[in-house]
Amino acid sequence: MLDDKPREACGVFGIYGHKEAARLTYLGLYALQHRGDESAGIVTGDGKQIRAHKGLGVVADVFTDEILKSLDGHLAIGHTRYSTTGASVAANAQPFVANCKGGPLAIAHNGNLTNTNALRKYLEQRGALFQTTMDSELIVHLAAKSQAETMAERIEDALGQVKGAFSLTFATKDQVIAARDPYGFRPLCLGRLDDAWIIASESCALDIVGAEYVRDVEPGELIVIDENGMHARKPFSAPRRAFCIFEYIYFSRPDSRIFGDYVDRTRRKLGKQLAIEHPADADIVIAVPDAANTAALGYSQRSQGRFEIGLIRNHYVGRTFIQPSQGMRDFKVKIKFNPVGGVLRDRSVVVVEDSIVRGTTLRQLSRMIREAGAREVHVRVSSPPIRFPCFYGMDFQTMGEIIAARQSPEAIRAHVGVDSLGYLSKAGMLAAMPNCAENYCTACFDGEYPLEVEEEMAKLRLEE
Amino acid sequence: MLDDKPREACGVFGIYGHKEAARLTYLGLYALQHRGDESAGIVTGDGKQIRAHKGLGVVADVFTDEILKSLDGHLAIGHTRYSTTGASVAANAQPFVANCKGGPLAIAHNGNLTNTNALRKYLEQRGALFQTTMDSELIVHLAAKSQAETMAERIEDALGQVKGAFSLTFATKDQVIAARDPYGFRPLCLGRLDDAWIIASESCALDIVGAEYVRDVEPGELIVIDENGMHARKPFSAPRRAFCIFEYIYFSRPDSRIFGDYVDRTRRKLGKQLAIEHPADADIVIAVPDAANTAALGYSQRSQGRFEIGLIRNHYVGRTFIQPSQGMRDFKVKIKFNPVGGVLRDRSVVVVEDSIVRGTTLRQLSRMIREAGAREVHVRVSSPPIRFPCFYGMDFQTMGEIIAARQSPEAIRAHVGVDSLGYLSKAGMLAAMPNCAENYCTACFDGEYPLEVEEEMAKLRLEE
Amino acid sequence: MLDDKPREACGVFGIYGHKEAARLTYLGLYALQHRGDESAGIVTGDGKQIRAHKGLGVVADVFTDEILKSLDGHLAIGHTRYSTTGASVAANAQPFVANCKGGPLAIAHNGNLTNTNALRKYLEQRGALFQTTMDSELIVHLAAKSQAETMAERIEDALGQVKGAFSLTFATKDQVIAARDPYGFRPLCLGRLDDAWIIASESCALDIVGAEYVRDVEPGELIVIDENGMHARKPFSAPRRAFCIFEYIYFSRPDSRIFGDYVDRTRRKLGKQLAIEHPADADIVIAVPDAANTAALGYSQRSQGRFEIGLIRNHYVGRTFIQPSQGMRDFKVKIKFNPVGGVLRDRSVVVVEDSIVRGTTLRQLSRMIREAGAREVHVRVSSPPIRFPCFYGMDFQTMGEIIAARQSPEAIRAHVGVDSLGYLSKAGMLAAMPNCAENYCTACFDGEYPLEVEEEMAKLRLEE
Amino acid sequence: MLDDKPREACGVFGIYGHKEAARLTYLGLYALQHRGDESAGIVTGDGKQIRAHKGLGVVADVFTDEILKSLDGHLAIGHTRYSTTGASVAANAQPFVANCKGGPLAIAHNGNLTNTNALRKYLEQRGALFQTTMDSELIVHLAAKSQAETMAERIEDALGQVKGAFSLTFATKDQVIAARDPYGFRPLCLGRLDDAWIIASESCALDIVGAEYVRDVEPGELIVIDENGMHARKPFSAPRRAFCIFEYIYFSRPDSRIFGDYVDRTRRKLGKQLAIEHPADADIVIAVPDAANTAALGYSQRSQGRFEIGLIRNHYVGRTFIQPSQGMRDFKVKIKFNPVGGVLRDRSVVVVEDSIVRGTTLRQLSRMIREAGAREVHVRVSSPPIRFPCFYGMDFQTMGEIIAARQSPEAIRAHVGVDSLGYLSKAGMLAAMPNCAENYCTACFDGEYPLEVEEEMAKLRLEE
Repeated sequence: MLDDKPREACGVFGIYGHKEAARLTYLGLYALQHRGDESAGIVTGDGKQIRAHKGLGVVADVFTDEILKSLDGHLAIGHTRYSTTGASVAANAQPFVANCKGGPLAIAHNGNLTNTNALRKYLEQRGALFQTTMDSELIVHLAAKSQAETMAERIEDALGQVKGAFSLTFATKDQVIAARDPYGFRPLCLGRLDDAWIIASESCALDIVGAEYVRDVEPGELIVIDENGMHARKPFSAPRRAFCIFEYIYFSRPDSRIFGDYVDRTRRKLGKQLAIEHPADADIVIAVPDAANTAALGYSQRSQGRFEIGLIRNHYVGRTFIQPSQGMRDFKVKIKFNPVGGVLRDRSVVVVEDSIVRGTTLRQLSRMIREAGAREVHVRVSSPPIRFPCFYGMDFQTMGEIIAARQSPEAIRAHVGVDSLGYLSKAGMLAAMPNCAENYCTACFDGEYPLEVEEEMAKLRLEE
Repeated sequence: MLDDKPREACGVFGIYGHKEAARLTYLGLYALQHRGDESAGIVTGDGKQIRAHKGLGVVADVFTDEILKSLDGHLAIGHTRYSTTGASVAANAQPFVANCKGGPLAIAHNGNLTNTNALRKYLEQRGALFQTTMDSELIVHLAAKSQAETMAERIEDALGQVKGAFSLTFATKDQVIAARDPYGFRPLCLGRLDDAWIIASESCALDIVGAEYVRDVEPGELIVIDENGMHARKPFSAPRRAFCIFEYIYFSRPDSRIFGDYVDRTRRKLGKQLAIEHPADADIVIAVPDAANTAALGYSQRSQGRFEIGLIRNHYVGRTFIQPSQGMRDFKVKIKFNPVGGVLRDRSVVVVEDSIVRGTTLRQLSRMIREAGAREVHVRVSSPPIRFPCFYGMDFQTMGEIIAARQSPEAIRAHVGVDSLGYLSKAGMLAAMPNCAENYCTACFDGEYPLEVEEEMAKLRLEE
Repeated sequence: MLDDKPREACGVFGIYGHKEAARLTYLGLYALQHRGDESAGIVTGDGKQIRAHKGLGVVADVFTDEILKSLDGHLAIGHTRYSTTGASVAANAQPFVANCKGGPLAIAHNGNLTNTNALRKYLEQRGALFQTTMDSELIVHLAAKSQAETMAERIEDALGQVKGAFSLTFATKDQVIAARDPYGFRPLCLGRLDDAWIIASESCALDIVGAEYVRDVEPGELIVIDENGMHARKPFSAPRRAFCIFEYIYFSRPDSRIFGDYVDRTRRKLGKQLAIEHPADADIVIAVPDAANTAALGYSQRSQGRFEIGLIRNHYVGRTFIQPSQGMRDFKVKIKFNPVGGVLRDRSVVVVEDSIVRGTTLRQLSRMIREAGAREVHVRVSSPPIRFPCFYGMDFQTMGEIIAARQSPEAIRAHVGVDSLGYLSKAGMLAAMPNCAENYCTACFDGEYPLEVEEEMAKLRLEE
Repeated sequence: MLDDKPREACGVFGIYGHKEAARLTYLGLYALQHRGDESAGIVTGDGKQIRAHKGLGVVADVFTDEILKSLDGHLAIGHTRYSTTGASVAANAQPFVANCKGGPLAIAHNGNLTNTNALRKYLEQRGALFQTTMDSELIVHLAAKSQAETMAERIEDALGQVKGAFSLTFATKDQVIAARDPYGFRPLCLGRLDDAWIIASESCALDIVGAEYVRDVEPGELIVIDENGMHARKPFSAPRRAFCIFEYIYFSRPDSRIFGDYVDRTRRKLGKQLAIEHPADADIVIAVPDAANTAALGYSQRSQGRFEIGLIRNHYVGRTFIQPSQGMRDFKVKIKFNPVGGVLRDRSVVVVEDSIVRGTTLRQLSRMIREAGAREVHVRVSSPPIRFPCFYGMDFQTMGEIIAARQSPEAIRAHVGVDSLGYLSKAGMLAAMPNCAENYCTACFDGEYPLEVEEEMAKLRLEE
């Protein structure tokens, strides 16, 4: 994934009924690490109380064996969050925990709400104190205000008042509760490990703990798991589905099963369709690793172009990587990728990439490939031009930086400096998807937002 | 101070109108370090926003130059908190900060409220979320719920609903507000440095920044400092005063001026009175350093006994000091004190101590003095026997461990293993005080609580 | 790379004549991170003194911007070291620095000496003090003892007395010196960036700083770089060459150029030869990522088997990863790899792996692939069976654990639990190499050691 | 102790024959913390190997329970080192450990050698590698070079070649060896705890572990403790004794017994003698705490002036204390001391201080006392003017800063800004000492160096 790729906020996990609940949550978060490496947290419940630990960094750095040992309990939820800049990042680590009428409540959230300003004003007028700037805190406030009797009912009450994208896990001292917004923007699935129930953003988190994939949590569904077993209801409804198509294109892991099919399979189809729409008479087909690997394979299979590994990705890049003080050309790309001279020299090369946001990094990458001896460079993108901001949880760069919002494909080709550039068509993209096309949110490509957004929020993003 | 001494919660500081507000707060907290070394925190305001930093440990460890530099603003409040055990100590570090209707509000609190259970229930029913287990959070909730217009009015509203001991500083982005409960349990004073106003728990915090002591913040007073200057009102009233007499006996620094007089002067008078009530025919008078030093000097001056330094105190004791695995006799005392052989050998010694809680450490200390060659050991205590718990902010050991609650002075003498033991009388203690006797809270000595306490709270403490 | 893969010690780097010498060394080490992530260190010289910083961990963790800023100087050497267990790892971080007659001398070493016991005894008898257990310290002692006039001559003197594998960079306050043993066991190359000369273990470290590859440092060569420019001599000779063939098979990065050719190119030829020797009638060809990727591509191209990505590798694995307390089956493999269900289900699969040491991990991996639905699993190994220990710097597991030392390929196949298993032949392996076959050390495959080893050392390894 | 006080390097400790050797050493170092808080280290031996841990900071920070547990063995030595600035402080932490012919050897050193340049040159010519810039390393090199048979003999050999001040403990895997130079510059004593023998810089380190003081290690003595018991010899001789008189005046703890008597007793006599030589018609006598406390008591007793506590010392001062960015007047003194207003106001005050080096801090302190209301300030110093550098381990500021080297007492009085200033005479000081006057080194007062110093070293210090 390049630096100018969209960043989505968060992976969530939940488990009920396992004596190693904290450890399995740790593993689940580890498998969901690609959904966020800014912070990680786990909250456990043992029937009497809850325990929490959160911290900045990747899962393996935030938790030690000692900490995991201290997180007693047969139920747990966990969260992993994407890296953003900002002073108060530590306070925004999740799960968010607060004490309220019914006892302590913890929440882990993936997605973005779209009526936060209204909710915040409403709550402030009623004396609410806010600890963070997170959407998720609003949900807990609403639940605390509810006069309903059980915590599950209070959560239902609260979620009835919020709009937007949410795939959620909650923990109380004796329950795990999960919910998914009725549009189904973000993935969420249900699994089973012996007697335990598991909730996870992607099925790869079930695989790592050896759990079986049962089904997706359905859009609009609320699931309560406690000593009485697992109970599902569907209190929330929406006029349509709006699965985030970007999860298939780039965000989810290829080995995950989301929205009803394997990511890998869909991504390969995108590559094949791309080969049909934009063939290239080139010697070899390479991917920008790792996200575009499968699409490149698909492109190669359909186009008969030889698949090669032309870029080696360095996986040691840390968050505090230090730059040389005098600008080194194409530095940001160099520390991530190195071209393989023996593969590229004197070749005409198709480079498959999953999407383009700013174009800056792809420009550097193309230059690097050319300097390694490639005769021709043809870029093929397995999604249409991104032209609109996302309000449901995908954190693109500011609008001003989205290159296709301002420039034509030909201008982008010239900017990136390659011999040809082909984007997959929207129709082609949708043809590659499982489910019918109407079920996907494609707002970032066509501006058709399935769910209204507060005026202020929309203005802010568009003006940025 | 011995390990079994009462521990009081917290020192507070506030400053308005100085471009180095954070740095001066840092110094002020450093001077108040004896009031708490568990955690420290500073919140600053620059007119537009507030900034906060808190952490576990002593002031000098929690803050670095870089952190202080980042704490911009012309106003600041700070807090230092006493060491207690418990898992969630980090969350309980102060100042507590929250966002509410009027913007961000920070609070630093010294003292204990006595109607917290009732307040908590009241707030929970109205949907409040609690982040901590601190009294202080309740005050902020009440202020957030107030329909009054300005933040100062909302705080006044809130404080009108709480009972107990409080010496408080608040910060908003453009105001510093201070308040003291109408009984005046805990000290709080007002100072001036050039154009800046300062609020501090003790005057030693004014001295370190070179500020001038102006006067005490009066019991029941509310002080608002902002661009319009300093404005004081007295909205809270009480049937009497109830200055904590323990502040004079042990807790405050000898160089501080509290409740209208120098601590040092009062402590010396306690020593003199002790010499009158319990003379001893001994060769030398020594103190248990450092808190009893002045009382011992007073005792020596009045009794004509020669003052000597018979115990050397080791100031490097850290919080994680490691014990030998096989019990070493009197170890806890040995790492704090070493007897001076040349002073004690073959002498009859008066040991002046400020108070006795459990008696365990004094027992070890006496044995150590005797083993260093003292012929006779006579303990003189510059306060009466402690027999009741404190609900206003002095954290004694659990009642079960307060030795004088269960045993007579003679039994204590035998337990401690000394030749004689004399406690100062209550009348003698009060005679040494400035102000009239009725102005002091002496509940820990006589059980006469000036302000009612919630039943549950009282039960809990007494049963412990 | 699987856990039971050979681990080699270290990558080295050196640069002379660049005002950002420390930063470029940092980048060079970052590119060599795959050669060792236990510790990292940089030593710089500015003509007057040397400065050093070393620490445990990966390069990006050991160095901060502040530290790099403090490492002034126009010359630098650096070192990155492989993870091993042991209490004194911190002391063994390199470069090793000592003060001696000619001033301070720093050394960074890749390789193993084979006459260390004799050298150690010789030096001990003459009063040498040892700070570490590293071979490299011996070289510095020998240089310090030399009566030669210049540091370069003293180093030449010292290297004349040692036997074994060494690719070395040295720094004094005003010189960078490099040397490679006359057998040429380990790679070492020379590069150029503007006016600066660079030495590096692999050419990928030249690429990252934008330097040009000039040539390999030749076996037996000694290179001195200082204000007089670069001067090379060849004082050391050997009866033959002995390039470590494992560098091509597994250890070096595919984008590096070593021993005169690209690693990627050689690795692909290994895969093609493997397809000729051990064809398989399977649906797809997958690699154990990342080291076997290129060989698998080669296998697929020659065999016409479809190349697929059947295993996703998780790159977040840290060194302190925590295991579930109750054994989870195949856990070690699960946290590194996840099978792609959509690719493997109902397929007959060729799995290409670069080498087998213990076989344990491959066994778990095969089971995981089968459980993901593969119909048949055929393992193909792009090197012959490893049967002998290495004394020249490749740290295999102890002999007792090298499975092919004790078992036949058929027994190994049964142990690993796959349908077929094919190893590349030694002749086939050599045929894929650039240079003539006699130039390679193949001792780990055939036990023919090109250079004698001290008896004690040999015994130790074989008995382990 | 004021900032401009002499700083001496180090406290040493050793123990043989106790199963908790590391823990008792930890306690011993803790009691010797006043002799150095820059770094601390412990080395243990268990008959088979040695183990070591060292680090920067105070003893309680350098060691954790886990670390102490890992330091197995029935023998141990330890070291605590004074704070100095400099980049490579970590490398200079002691005990210094090296491997040599006879196995590993560890050394802990208090004192300074005076022929280091000559020794260093001698060793360099013979190929020695130096890891540190410490004198102590030279001793280990000399021992390693010795052809004597046992380690004790080799150490004797080595110490026969060094000149200067040394109080030493050594550890091998099965022996503790101690030695003191024949002049006896620095203290060293021998104690007994059950079957264990203990060596310590001061007797306060025996007290804390409950050991009995047996006797001083005599000047010129070498003590070997192993499974054969304790054996003492006196292989080193000198024309005279030269006990550092500054140990009595300022450096050692008052509760320690050194050079045959209690420090406290001697310090009191200095105070009494000072009262005789420089009486003052003042209301009260106060000390600059803590070092001058006992001298002030002696002054008060002899002069009939009332002893008071007029300065409160803040013990929380850390090493990284942050200054206000705009100069606050007398800041360095303010964070260490606060005057007690009630004591000083309108009083004529005698301030007893143990010594003056630069005078800067005393000047600030006097001003602070005056601003607290003192009518007159009379400084009395319990030692003569310091006028010469020390080459035997007392690290005064550079010569240029020693105020009495350049100015008369009257000029110093004017500089410090007090009403009168009286230094104790040299004769008076010597009269207060136990032992005969000829046994003391008074070089810092009179320039009569008992032992010659290398020309270069002398020049360096004098020119600084």
